[in-house]
Amino acid sequence: MNIKVKEKREKLEQVAKRRFFYTQSFESYGGVSGFFDFGPNMCALQNNFLSIWRNHFVLTENMLEVDTAIITPFEVLKSSGHVEKFTDLMCADSVTGEVYRADHLVRDYLLREAENKDEREKQEFISKANMIDSFGKEELQGLIDKYGIKSDNKNALTKIAPFNLMFNTIVGPCGKSQSFLRPETAQGQFLNFKRLLENNGDKMPFASATVGKAFRNEISPRTGLFRVREFLMAEIEHFVHPEEKSHPKFAKYSSIELPLLFREKDAESEDQAIHTMSMDAAVKKGIVNNETLGYFIIRVYQFLVKIGIPESAIRIRQHLPTEMAHYATDCWDVEIDTAFGWIECVGIADRACYDLSVHSKKTGDKLVARRRLTTPTTEKKTVAVVNKKELGSKFRSQAQKAIQALEALTEDEIEQKKISENEIEIELLGEKIVTQIEKLEIVKHIEEYTPSVIEPSFGIGRILYALLWHSFWIREDNEQKSLFSFTPGMAPIKCIILPLQEDERFTEIITSLKDTIVESGISCNLDESKASIGRRYSRADEIGIPFCITVDFDTLEDKMVTLRERDSTLQIRIAISDIPSTLTKLVKEEISFDSLQKEK
Amino acid sequence: MNIKVKEKREKLEQVAKRRFFYTQSFESYGGVSGFFDFGPNMCALQNNFLSIWRNHFVLTENMLEVDTAIITPFEVLKSSGHVEKFTDLMCADSVTGEVYRADHLVRDYLLREAENKDEREKQEFISKANMIDSFGKEELQGLIDKYGIKSDNKNALTKIAPFNLMFNTIVGPCGKSQSFLRPETAQGQFLNFKRLLENNGDKMPFASATVGKAFRNEISPRTGLFRVREFLMAEIEHFVHPEEKSHPKFAKYSSIELPLLFREKDAESEDQAIHTMSMDAAVKKGIVNNETLGYFIIRVYQFLVKIGIPESAIRIRQHLPTEMAHYATDCWDVEIDTAFGWIECVGIADRACYDLSVHSKKTGDKLVARRRLTTPTTEKKTVAVVNKKELGSKFRSQAQKAIQALEALTEDEIEQKKISENEIEIELLGEKIVTQIEKLEIVKHIEEYTPSVIEPSFGIGRILYALLWHSFWIREDNEQKSLFSFTPGMAPIKCIILPLQEDERFTEIITSLKDTIVESGISCNLDESKASIGRRYSRADEIGIPFCITVDFDTLEDKMVTLRERDSTLQIRIAISDIPSTLTKLVKEEISFDSLQKEK
Repeated sequence: MNIKVKEKREKLEQVAKRRFFYTQSFESYGGVSGFFDFGPNMCALQNNFLSIWRNHFVLTENMLEVDTAIITPFEVLKSSGHVEKFTDLMCADSVTGEVYRADHLVRDYLLREAENKDEREKQEFISKANMIDSFGKEELQGLIDKYGIKSDNKNALTKIAPFNLMFNTIVGPCGKSQSFLRPETAQGQFLNFKRLLENNGDKMPFASATVGKAFRNEISPRTGLFRVREFLMAEIEHFVHPEEKSHPKFAKYSSIELPLLFREKDAESEDQAIHTMSMDAAVKKGIVNNETLGYFIIRVYQFLVKIGIPESAIRIRQHLPTEMAHYATDCWDVEIDTAFGWIECVGIADRACYDLSVHSKKTGDKLVARRRLTTPTTEKKTVAVVNKKELGSKFRSQAQKAIQALEALTEDEIEQKKISENEIEIELLGEKIVTQIEKLEIVKHIEEYTPSVIEPSFGIGRILYALLWHSFWIREDNEQKSLFSFTPGMAPIKCIILPLQEDERFTEIITSLKDTIVESGISCNLDESKASIGRRYSRADEIGIPFCITVDFDTLEDKMVTLRERDSTLQIRIAISDIPSTLTKLVKEEISFDSLQKEK
Repeated sequence: MNIKVKEKREKLEQVAKRRFFYTQSFESYGGVSGFFDFGPNMCALQNNFLSIWRNHFVLTENMLEVDTAIITPFEVLKSSGHVEKFTDLMCADSVTGEVYRADHLVRDYLLREAENKDEREKQEFISKANMIDSFGKEELQGLIDKYGIKSDNKNALTKIAPFNLMFNTIVGPCGKSQSFLRPETAQGQFLNFKRLLENNGDKMPFASATVGKAFRNEISPRTGLFRVREFLMAEIEHFVHPEEKSHPKFAKYSSIELPLLFREKDAESEDQAIHTMSMDAAVKKGIVNNETLGYFIIRVYQFLVKIGIPESAIRIRQHLPTEMAHYATDCWDVEIDTAFGWIECVGIADRACYDLSVHSKKTGDKLVARRRLTTPTTEKKTVAVVNKKELGSKFRSQAQKAIQALEALTEDEIEQKKISENEIEIELLGEKIVTQIEKLEIVKHIEEYTPSVIEPSFGIGRILYALLWHSFWIREDNEQKSLFSFTPGMAPIKCIILPLQEDERFTEIITSLKDTIVESGISCNLDESKASIGRRYSRADEIGIPFCITVDFDTLEDKMVTLRERDSTLQIRIAISDIPSTLTKLVKEEISFDSLQKEK
């Protein structure tokens, strides 16, 4: 990390702690790694984030938002593959028992040792470190053995073993219902697919969405808000026909150029490189698989820019085949450049029909959609001939069961039971019978299919930290003066009232002004402390309050106040009566302070 | 339950299921008791609830909202008393192992058997059933033994034992960090008290707030959304000086009359009765302990009315001393009348200084506030005389430690170590020394105190179910036509566009109208199905959409549409260009449809 980045990060973290943006949870009890509490400023940022997010996605795209259970039965996550595959590889110090994530341990070793090697070996070490995500258990164990990698305490390590990242719990008093805290919000959406489709008037495609907590029992979380054990996420599941992934609104935005990071098929190097191109070109070249995936990449990019992430700090990276989650067939990460390097903040995965299929198979509850075929298809099928009269006289009260059993025979079963070209022998309700079979041509007008799922998945804490990082700066004239340049829409507190000094004559004005602003739905603080106006401006800047309203002695006469903008420190004089409507427009970003300034 | 209530409940639950308001979680996997998923309609209701709630409480009262961890270490909940006391009494069928909540089992038995008894015994049984909340383990076991109460399968029951209602989990890979899912959001607020006070400029009183999931491993949850194992709650912790619980805004609302349910001190009966009185009177008579408690009761009442709960369906009941939580000194429940009788939806507890004290004691991290005394107090105190010079030459490099040890001596310790009126003998860093003591008069200008906490705690799912119950009705002219009369602010979807029939000429108007409405931040559906307009109106009414916009052939000419109000079914003709602004005012409840109607 370069010095400037390190300095900025330290300053930012000081301010974030002092002004209670966030803190480690349960600090007075010694703290627990991987858990953070959000204070009032961060919590308000988060609420504003969600409000803009719901507007940008749920409202605009007519998504069906659902709120589903966190505690999830073993069986559900067994079907989804999480019980088996949602693991990290760990190994432990054989003496102290301290546990390490194997890939992080090996990567850190390689990067550390690279410094002491000659140029050739150095490059080899760095290259291996960069590829660490693609190594499996054997490769990592191989590297530990080859280089004799030890624990931080220089002790031998235990063999690498997988560790499931889900938190366990038991539901009910009998100890039988083993469950997990969900590791993602997606499963609750998949399980409700049928109701959602019905709720959408059986129209495809459509998307559901969930905002909620998810949990991952990380082995040794370290990098602050980026690797946590409990986190708020927002996930969209867009259900679409697997062969019809065009998107009606794609053309609207497809010319926007985006920084895509991928390896071109014919490139000489194994490394990925940034290619700035329109999504239109990316889809046409087959780099991004389809329009729907491309559409969501664009919309995510637009969202991040809207909340205040600089365009230059965003890149969109395609997953290597080896680093994809077990359910994904293609995945793009939207990464943001931060104090910790490029960090995955939104993952946009094509989960294909993996999840809906496995749940259908397990429960027998078919999670499918239907569509009318423009050209009917014909299917040939061999079935058992059902002679109802004959079966009736043979099985009497059991006849219905016999008919159902015959109708349920699959083609494979019929093939196995064939005794001639036209006959099968089967056991029906305990009795062996011989029955005719026939070949049918079935004309299908309706196709039943398992939808594909395109999933944009947002790590909210990560994005908020990235936003703090990019909003934070220090005034040139005074390095004690730091500020967060949040957009008015995102700013935790929108304005603050500052009486020039303590004076009873201000009381009524201040109180009624504050009430009016709050009644307009705008958050408003009041700083009546004895600190100088300059000091109080700085304190407001420090938590990113965009507008300060100063009440002075002139106010008593002319009913005007001073409105100051945070970043520019520019001030205008404005009538008290205009404050609520002006603030409303500023906060909704319908007007800029600049334009107000020019008007005056 | 009377027939009409039962019928209405069944109809409501049919609609709620069919239109996906909520469903049991993991239904296709057999479902898990006590877990519910909220579909798009209920989820939108919940979001609207939270937005009004934040406006009514957090914004208006300048509360500090925080978002803290769900997974909570054992030690924290040990201190708070939950490990020991957050239990329900259970017993099991000794043959099948089925588990019962002991109080529910006994109550159900008493109510069932009461029917077969003579009048005197009947009354005794019912009276005992009504007092069930006040019975402890011994009393309940006594009743089971006395009446020979059996399980549902007529088997003997195991002895009653307490069952802790918190879900367990383990953090990290070593299996050492036993933790719980929080049973309430309060502890996270208490543990951050110091940072919050600092964030509030050290000004008291103030309130923090949290909206988040909490978890209770109920023994056998049954009554739908009212007893669930995972639920969203909103909690406010108002921190205040224990002897200064007046509230500056109390007078503003104190004349509002509220239905309070309590037992008057001199009443003959043990039963509580409704007394409709102003909060002013209730506080003056000492029925409600203090203004702050009273203020929050009023504000909660106003909030419930604002979101659409009828005033007549609300009552405010004082807890019996025996039913209060272990941390509470006084508690009032705001109850709403529902299909299941009167249900606690908001609890307003005075937790006194219980929580802040226990955490301070456990961690040594003092959770206290300070205030300047108007009249300084004088305190007499005996202390050890610290002769720094002497200690310096005696202990040299250890001198500082010796000084600290002397200064840390409490009065009790000094009393015990006295060897004369003016001297004590103590062991200091392994050496016995004799040192002087002196009596000081300490004048205190600042008082350090542990604040009391007033806590309004909202069960959001319960309130939403109560709201469904009170909003649901059936049109007199057609019992197939049910509707939810949500207020425009609460309604999940605000409006729907209905083209009179399928016609290409409508497409452009519909699309652009919908876009404009959505751009104003108003949720808007579209029903282009072939069903008749009447049928589509009914479908919209069924999920409580307040406004239907019908596009017909006249629209093509006059650019006017029909705007229909749900409850009255009244319609007006309005220009398309006026729709967004009119809807905005209607949804914000700035104008009523009635007034629009009159204007025309």
